[in-house]
Amino acid sequence: MANPLDYNALNTITYGLYLVSSYDGETKNALVVNTAFQVTAAPAKIAVSVNKNSFTRQLMLKSGKFAVMPMDEKTPFIFIGRFGFRSGKTFNKFENIEFTVGKNGCPLIKEHTLSAVEVSVEQTIDLPTHTLFIGQITDAQVFNSAGKPLTYDYYYTVLKGKTPAGATHL
Amino acid sequence: MANPLDYNALNTITYGLYLVSSYDGETKNALVVNTAFQVTAAPAKIAVSVNKNSFTRQLMLKSGKFAVMPMDEKTPFIFIGRFGFRSGKTFNKFENIEFTVGKNGCPLIKEHTLSAVEVSVEQTIDLPTHTLFIGQITDAQVFNSAGKPLTYDYYYTVLKGKTPAGATHL
Repeated sequence: MANPLDYNALNTITYGLYLVSSYDGETKNALVVNTAFQVTAAPAKIAVSVNKNSFTRQLMLKSGKFAVMPMDEKTPFIFIGRFGFRSGKTFNKFENIEFTVGKNGCPLIKEHTLSAVEVSVEQTIDLPTHTLFIGQITDAQVFNSAGKPLTYDYYYTVLKGKTPAGATHL
Repeated sequence: MANPLDYNALNTITYGLYLVSSYDGETKNALVVNTAFQVTAAPAKIAVSVNKNSFTRQLMLKSGKFAVMPMDEKTPFIFIGRFGFRSGKTFNKFENIEFTVGKNGCPLIKEHTLSAVEVSVEQTIDLPTHTLFIGQITDAQVFNSAGKPLTYDYYYTVLKGKTPAGATHL
């Protein structure tokens, strides 16, 4: 019998958890993603992978702008759920949430995040279920230099968080 | 005065540390990368970002095969340096290192790694200093289910590791 693939091998890949926001005119949204990485140092470019079903992705494609905010390890579960488990298509995620508008027009949320990187989209890569957005960093600021980044591992093992089916369609 | 970009904002992005190996005929090499992520669950695809100056990248382009091995948090610094700070162009990284040959032909190193994912390259994305390799997972196995993945944060803050200039050209 052929040895089956053991997909537990993929559980040892390290991910963070990030709020990614965007806008189109008066409409704004943000979701939670686990894949963000710096592409080059100079010029400073960053990439994020966003599920194709998400409303935020539609806004990113329209405006060509997004912001990435690494989340704080101390983020309450309910805050993660608000942005991570619900869809901006049918729910106003920003109701009663404090935010400012970044230089690139995207909503920035300081609460429970460590920093914000504002980005202009330069390239989109079509992947089977996701779009990889690559862009130039146009602004970057630190909100909380003492906090620790929330990792997916911490979320899963300490916060006992699980991703509901369809939760990445945000 | 315009507010300068605070690139410390990028220090809160979470990365792991991975051995990535490849081969071309009798020639094999492996390097350390910090960017690997699952692209889709079904079919199972993975991506890694590899510096354009690296010897391993040349082998990946020739054979179209690579293996990704998330490193164990307990990996000794000298082992990371062997694969991460030296170039396979002038140094045989596999001398006195135990390895097996994976189904896809790539060398697999169990020592100090948690798992191995074997990949056939399907797509390469040209980034300014790196190439993003995206491929189909053809085999996956767990070596150490009790170990914790080594993160870049742990490497930097606990092991006090720094990346020497040019160290990603591996």
